[in-house]
Amino acid sequence: MNPAVGDDRRFVLTLGCPDRTGIVARISAFLAELGGWIVEAAYHADEDTGWFFTRQAIRASSVELSAYEIRERFAKVAAELGPETEWSLHDSGEPKRVVLLVSKEGHCLHDLLGRAAGGELPATITAVIGNHRDLEPVARAHGVAFHHVPFPAAGTDDDARVEARTAAFARIREIVDAHDPHAVVLARFMQVLPPELCEHWTGRAINIHHSFLPSFVGARPYHQAFARGVKLIGATCHYVTGELDAGPIIEQDVTRIDHSDTVPDMVRQGRDIEKLVLARGLRWHLEDRVLVHGRKTVVFS
Amino acid sequence: MNPAVGDDRRFVLTLGCPDRTGIVARISAFLAELGGWIVEAAYHADEDTGWFFTRQAIRASSVELSAYEIRERFAKVAAELGPETEWSLHDSGEPKRVVLLVSKEGHCLHDLLGRAAGGELPATITAVIGNHRDLEPVARAHGVAFHHVPFPAAGTDDDARVEARTAAFARIREIVDAHDPHAVVLARFMQVLPPELCEHWTGRAINIHHSFLPSFVGARPYHQAFARGVKLIGATCHYVTGELDAGPIIEQDVTRIDHSDTVPDMVRQGRDIEKLVLARGLRWHLEDRVLVHGRKTVVFS
Amino acid sequence: MNPAVGDDRRFVLTLGCPDRTGIVARISAFLAELGGWIVEAAYHADEDTGWFFTRQAIRASSVELSAYEIRERFAKVAAELGPETEWSLHDSGEPKRVVLLVSKEGHCLHDLLGRAAGGELPATITAVIGNHRDLEPVARAHGVAFHHVPFPAAGTDDDARVEARTAAFARIREIVDAHDPHAVVLARFMQVLPPELCEHWTGRAINIHHSFLPSFVGARPYHQAFARGVKLIGATCHYVTGELDAGPIIEQDVTRIDHSDTVPDMVRQGRDIEKLVLARGLRWHLEDRVLVHGRKTVVFS
Amino acid sequence: MNPAVGDDRRFVLTLGCPDRTGIVARISAFLAELGGWIVEAAYHADEDTGWFFTRQAIRASSVELSAYEIRERFAKVAAELGPETEWSLHDSGEPKRVVLLVSKEGHCLHDLLGRAAGGELPATITAVIGNHRDLEPVARAHGVAFHHVPFPAAGTDDDARVEARTAAFARIREIVDAHDPHAVVLARFMQVLPPELCEHWTGRAINIHHSFLPSFVGARPYHQAFARGVKLIGATCHYVTGELDAGPIIEQDVTRIDHSDTVPDMVRQGRDIEKLVLARGLRWHLEDRVLVHGRKTVVFS
Repeated sequence: MNPAVGDDRRFVLTLGCPDRTGIVARISAFLAELGGWIVEAAYHADEDTGWFFTRQAIRASSVELSAYEIRERFAKVAAELGPETEWSLHDSGEPKRVVLLVSKEGHCLHDLLGRAAGGELPATITAVIGNHRDLEPVARAHGVAFHHVPFPAAGTDDDARVEARTAAFARIREIVDAHDPHAVVLARFMQVLPPELCEHWTGRAINIHHSFLPSFVGARPYHQAFARGVKLIGATCHYVTGELDAGPIIEQDVTRIDHSDTVPDMVRQGRDIEKLVLARGLRWHLEDRVLVHGRKTVVFS
Repeated sequence: MNPAVGDDRRFVLTLGCPDRTGIVARISAFLAELGGWIVEAAYHADEDTGWFFTRQAIRASSVELSAYEIRERFAKVAAELGPETEWSLHDSGEPKRVVLLVSKEGHCLHDLLGRAAGGELPATITAVIGNHRDLEPVARAHGVAFHHVPFPAAGTDDDARVEARTAAFARIREIVDAHDPHAVVLARFMQVLPPELCEHWTGRAINIHHSFLPSFVGARPYHQAFARGVKLIGATCHYVTGELDAGPIIEQDVTRIDHSDTVPDMVRQGRDIEKLVLARGLRWHLEDRVLVHGRKTVVFS
Repeated sequence: MNPAVGDDRRFVLTLGCPDRTGIVARISAFLAELGGWIVEAAYHADEDTGWFFTRQAIRASSVELSAYEIRERFAKVAAELGPETEWSLHDSGEPKRVVLLVSKEGHCLHDLLGRAAGGELPATITAVIGNHRDLEPVARAHGVAFHHVPFPAAGTDDDARVEARTAAFARIREIVDAHDPHAVVLARFMQVLPPELCEHWTGRAINIHHSFLPSFVGARPYHQAFARGVKLIGATCHYVTGELDAGPIIEQDVTRIDHSDTVPDMVRQGRDIEKLVLARGLRWHLEDRVLVHGRKTVVFS
Repeated sequence: MNPAVGDDRRFVLTLGCPDRTGIVARISAFLAELGGWIVEAAYHADEDTGWFFTRQAIRASSVELSAYEIRERFAKVAAELGPETEWSLHDSGEPKRVVLLVSKEGHCLHDLLGRAAGGELPATITAVIGNHRDLEPVARAHGVAFHHVPFPAAGTDDDARVEARTAAFARIREIVDAHDPHAVVLARFMQVLPPELCEHWTGRAINIHHSFLPSFVGARPYHQAFARGVKLIGATCHYVTGELDAGPIIEQDVTRIDHSDTVPDMVRQGRDIEKLVLARGLRWHLEDRVLVHGRKTVVFS
């Protein structure tokens, strides 16, 4: 997608800090001084952690400064709000980039490429990396570079396998970092990221897990769901952390099944939920709507 | 329910005015001057109508003024925002009252009385008025006064019938107004309010219609839905206006049906949606979360 | 509710047996010989376990035999289908009975009593047993006997406490069994049934758990959900077995929450899901729509 | 997709006839005689119209006859059930074909091509016809023939325009009929089929309308929804008939919106519902799960 232009261009401010009185007044006074026209404003005061969160979208055309200049000025305001304050200001006119990691299952890739083609994704998909070549044609058909990084076959973790795997992830890191992406999406990638990559891409690596977490962590969640006899199956979009399937949840949804649904039926119906949940989660991430705090997220959707 | 006390007590400010820059700054500066601790804040700028809406909940214990005093001071701020500005400030420590109008179908009444008993409704149900006596026992069992106001049987509108009907509505108006309620709920009342009562209770009369409006306006919506062969049925909670089933919509929801569902099946399943939709809509109304603008609502849920 | 009469009266046949060809032909030939008018018929062949399930509802007025006589004749057909065959034939004209176990939280009780009052439950609620007296008034207001069986306060399991608890469950068993109910519903009872009662009421004891199982087993599931930061909360209606919250699931549903919802918000919103899920599960159980097989259910809803 | 082979191959029998006792017995006796292993069986007796419907899926490997031979034999059974009986027997091993009509909006096309690529659609997409060339590349990238049939620009219906339009539809008919498809899908085609094509493709032409019908018939339904202030938007998959947006409904679904959603937001979120509803409806149609009766459908999903 082309970055936002004209009257659709926004400056998006996000901020998290310890809660106290006067924060909203301080920030809105700052924005008013700039003449900033606020088109979206959301707040959340978390009583549990005593933390305050906000996201504000300002019509770019209403302010005479650049994003850089606003950042410079706002830094002083942020400093007043305490040393723990975390904030960012993004110009929706600056394009964002996404890199996708895939394996053989193509439904999430097809879905995201279709959305990108329809101008629905506020970012450009700059590369697709697959540990198999199955999805190369569809990526290329959409004009997106495809990189094949083979992984050793599953098996006992002998030295050679560990080494090959380490090399493959090093190669992936190299390709991904060359794009400096705003999101690294594990679109049914099926390989567990090593701890150092979880760390390196903190807050940018997004996974879609095919269960309603925390149920059915790990492998073959639809088989687990079938065995337990649940009446709904789900999917979870979350940030990747060092602990498997335990990162901050961005979005979840479910769909109804019944006794007549076999595991393949669940797989098929689950795909629709996976696609929706990942697309929503990724969109919110790219629009700076997701603020992470500890193990949880605030989503100003 | 007892009105909110202690740290749960809130001052709730709602405001709508023509949009321009600086409104949020003006309001939040005002609240900051009072030392007001904002626990909830929501904004909406409607690009279509150029209108700005906000709702702010302030911890009452953080402010040393009474609701009356805050209102006095805020009036000046509101005046600065232009003559069209509409606003209110409610003290959640001041109890609210609800009057219910019912007929023979009891599911919404049972539901609301159960919620009131569980402390879930931020108001007291002070009276139930029925055009039949069927629901008198359950109202009384919950300690709520029941008033029986019989209506003439359906039939040709001869003078006697019109007169009896007019007298019945006059009696209802009298009973309702004696309670000065914050909401008059048509909980499956099945009688169409005359225009003067729609006018008199503007913004306070709430109806639950058993279809997903604007489909199936008027009588027997489940029969209409059955005839059309829809795959979902719904319910709509809306403010009552002079035009039948056309008032501003507060909340809607649907439930799935299929070819095996008869009209009685729809009636039964529809009840669950009616109860939920009415309970949510009424709760939001009582918590000052619903701002009406023209034919539409802003719901800060 | 009055039992079904006239043309609404049904004979409901349910059957489970090892799958093979010709079962449907055998059963439908039997019903055709009786002149039975089938108004509902559902089948399920489970490829995983090789088991066949069916439920058939026959208009009672179309058959000249009594339920007793049909049972006698059908026993021969069932025998042909193999020694593992399990079946039942229920006459919807024979009234069913339900006993409810409650504690202090009243929402499920209010809901079920309201449904019973509206003729929506295909059974009579014959008794409510509470370990507290809080819900006695509402039960009595609906004309339902209330039995108070106090439990020892939570604490260390010394001998006296264990003994008091054992005595309380013995008393509950006595009261329940005196009603010979078709369902014993733990309507937010908050006490774990001892193994011998799980065994004694196998297939009749129904619990509502306030999470989307298998997530958040055990105590305080909403607190667990809050801590994990899930985006949907749910409820599960299941048969009680000796393993806590692990019995065959009858029905589940979820509702959306977000970062602004506190634990009390979840508790309030969760109630609506608990009520719906329990009411649906109980209704299906009472209409012989639920067939249990191992840890799972077939629900012909 | 390759047609079903081996143990996944099914004979699917669908039948509708006036209801009376013994139909199930007659059909299941017929299938038992063939040694047919029934893997799915569904029935519906419509009390409103006195009509009986069934769908049965038989494991092809369990029967020694061809679909042709079964049809020949079953014709006698069908004749016994009366002259109004309508039935079909499909062999899932015989491939099905789909032709898609599109305009500029690509989301439904992307979605269906992605599903076909994943082997999820029980048919082959044999051609895409567009009145614009925008979607030609994606069709070709999936190896599907694209036919461009331009239409006259919108405007006053002078003779030349009418003639050009008639010619365009004649060309479309020619292309479509050359493929003899089991479904002609209007995947956001935006042109109203002329009556003779509605007639010609009766029971095969499937449309996706971007509203929850019967609300918001005709043009710009999201604009209509925005103006009315509804809280949910939806989509409807239905058979095309001569009356605009009034054909038998196959599937519908909705998604929640709120006051902050503009028309473009609705368009974006609505796409996800359109894709899901069309994919489900088309799949059910292709699997012979949809039986049309008058203005309504029976869907054995």
